[in-house]
Amino acid sequence: MQNQIKVGVLGFGGLGQAAAKVLAPKQEMKLVAIADRKGYAYDPAGLDGDACAKIYREKDSVGYLESGGVLSNNSIQDLLEKADVDGYFLALPNLPNTFMASVARQFIDAGWQGVLVDALKRTSAMEQVLAMGEDFKGAGMTYMAGCGATPGLLTAVAAIAAQSYAEIHSVTITFGVGIANWEAYRATIREDIAHLPGFDVEKARAMSDAEVEAFLDKTNGILTLENMEHADDIMLELGGICSRDRVTVGGIVDTRNAKKPLSTNVKVTGRTFEGKTSTHTFTLGDETSMAANVCGPAFGYLKAGVSLHRQGLYGLFTAAEIMPQFVK
Amino acid sequence: MQNQIKVGVLGFGGLGQAAAKVLAPKQEMKLVAIADRKGYAYDPAGLDGDACAKIYREKDSVGYLESGGVLSNNSIQDLLEKADVDGYFLALPNLPNTFMASVARQFIDAGWQGVLVDALKRTSAMEQVLAMGEDFKGAGMTYMAGCGATPGLLTAVAAIAAQSYAEIHSVTITFGVGIANWEAYRATIREDIAHLPGFDVEKARAMSDAEVEAFLDKTNGILTLENMEHADDIMLELGGICSRDRVTVGGIVDTRNAKKPLSTNVKVTGRTFEGKTSTHTFTLGDETSMAANVCGPAFGYLKAGVSLHRQGLYGLFTAAEIMPQFVK
Repeated sequence: MQNQIKVGVLGFGGLGQAAAKVLAPKQEMKLVAIADRKGYAYDPAGLDGDACAKIYREKDSVGYLESGGVLSNNSIQDLLEKADVDGYFLALPNLPNTFMASVARQFIDAGWQGVLVDALKRTSAMEQVLAMGEDFKGAGMTYMAGCGATPGLLTAVAAIAAQSYAEIHSVTITFGVGIANWEAYRATIREDIAHLPGFDVEKARAMSDAEVEAFLDKTNGILTLENMEHADDIMLELGGICSRDRVTVGGIVDTRNAKKPLSTNVKVTGRTFEGKTSTHTFTLGDETSMAANVCGPAFGYLKAGVSLHRQGLYGLFTAAEIMPQFVK
Repeated sequence: MQNQIKVGVLGFGGLGQAAAKVLAPKQEMKLVAIADRKGYAYDPAGLDGDACAKIYREKDSVGYLESGGVLSNNSIQDLLEKADVDGYFLALPNLPNTFMASVARQFIDAGWQGVLVDALKRTSAMEQVLAMGEDFKGAGMTYMAGCGATPGLLTAVAAIAAQSYAEIHSVTITFGVGIANWEAYRATIREDIAHLPGFDVEKARAMSDAEVEAFLDKTNGILTLENMEHADDIMLELGGICSRDRVTVGGIVDTRNAKKPLSTNVKVTGRTFEGKTSTHTFTLGDETSMAANVCGPAFGYLKAGVSLHRQGLYGLFTAAEIMPQFVK
C-alpha cells in the first residue's frame, strides 16, 4: 500500500513483540525494522512479527532471521545507516535511567531525520530527553515523549479532563496490571521493583532472574507501588495544567495472574469557575492489557508525529500536548 | 499583561455570560469584545463581564454599556471592523441550523484573520462549517469546530481512549444536565426540544417562552433525549476512529433542578489486538456544570487554535484532532 508509514521497533522484549502484533493488521503502517541487543532485522517489504518473535525466543536475537537478519554489536547504529524508516518506537528497557536519552543521541549523531516515540516512565529519564528538545529540532527530528499508557494515554486524558476546571487540585493515577508470566516482561518488572522502598534502578537492574523470582515469592507475586517517580507529573506541569507535586502515580502489579488486581484509572480533581470542587474519572476496561494500552497509543502518537514531521514541525512534544491519531 | 490573548464572545445568553465568568480570572486571556443581536461592547483594556451581564439582563443588549457599548443591527459586522481580537468564541444559538455557518461566512467576507471556536452540536450544522474548510484556509483563519462538552471534551477523550483498541465497536455518550432555571438557557433548551419526536429545529425555534413552559410542565421539566443528531459522530469518523453510525448520543436534561439526573459519561468499546472486547469509561464529576464543561474546553481549544494560527496553520480542525491547551 502506498504512503504506508514505515515503522521500526527498537527492543524486542515483551513490549517490542506486542508492538509487532499490534502493527500486523494495520493498513497505514508497515513494520520494516527491528533491533535488539545482538542484531537487527530489516526488510523494506515488511517483516513478519511472529517469525521474528519465534527467532528471538529461540536464539535471543532477530539478527538470526534468515531473510533480513544481521548480527551486530552496534545493532541500532547499523540499522540506522541501512534502513529507510519513517518512525521508530523505542520499546527499550527503561534501565539504566540514561539509556533512552543515549539511544536518542545516537539518532541525532547519525544525522537521522524522522520520528521517535518513547514510552518512558521515570521523570528523571524524561528530563534527559526534554533537555535534548533543541537538539531534536536542529536535527530535523520529531520526538514524541511519554506516549505509552502512563505516561501517555492517561496523561492525555487528564490534560483534556482538566479543561472543565479553573484550577487543578490533583491528578491521581492508579494502575492495575496483571501478567500471567513475569518473565515475558523482565525489564518492566525490574523497573517496577526499582520503585519499591530499599531498591533503586541500579539495584533492580542488577538482580538475576532467580533473585527476582525469589523476591516475588515473598510478595506472592504482588508489587504494590506508591508515590512513584512517574513522568506524568512533569508532562502535566509542562502543559501548564498543574505543578508536578499535584500529580501522584501508584498501582498494583500482579505478576502471576493475567487478571488485573484493580481497574486502572485517573482522577482529575479541580475547582470550577463557579467554585465547585469535583472529580472527573477515566477508567480503563479490565480486559485491556498493558500491551494494548501502551502500544496502541505509541503508534497513535507515531502517526501524529509523522504528520508533524511532514509539516516541518520538529523538536520534542509530549503526549499531553499532541492528540494521537488513530491508526487503521 | 503582555501577550495576553484578546478574546471576543459572540452571543451573550447563558453560555456567553458563563464564558465571560470563566475568562475573568485568566491571566493568559482578556475579554475585550462581546456582541449580541442588538449591539456590541468593545474595550481593548478589557471588559467587565459582570457589568456586561447586568446591562444585558436589564436592557437585552451589551450595546447599552456606557463605556464601549454600541447599539447596532449589524453588531458582528461592525464589531469585526472595529475590534482587535485574536479569537472569538461563538457562543451563539445553534438555531437556525445554518446560523453558525452564516456567521463564519461573515468573518471570511470581512477578510478577518484569526481564530474562531464553536460549540456546535448538530451533525448537519457541522457539515456546513466542515464544507468551508478550504475557505477558512484561504482566508488565513483557524476554525476550531465542536469544542464544547459534547461534542468537544467527551469527543476528545473518546479519540484518545480509542487508542487501546484495534477496532472500535461503539462510542456511547450519555449526558445528564441539571439547570435550576431553564430561562437562563433558552436557546439551549429549544435546541434540546428540537431533538424530540414530533419536533424539528424550526418548530422548536418558533415556540414562545410560554409554549416551552407549558411543554416542560407536561414532562415535569425533564427532557429525555435518545439517538440525537450530534456531531461527535462525524468528528470521530473524520478522525478515522470509527464510522459515524457507531457513535450514539443521548441524555436527560432536568430543567428544574441544578442537580444532574445522571452522571455524564462516554463509553468507548472496542476489540484489542489480542481479540479481547472491553470498554473504557470517562465520567464527569456531577458538580461540574454544563457551562464549566463547555466554556473551559472552548477556551482551551481557542488557546490551541491561537498556537496553530501563529504557526501559520490555517483551516478547520476539530476537537478530536487537536489537543486543547490549559488556559491559566
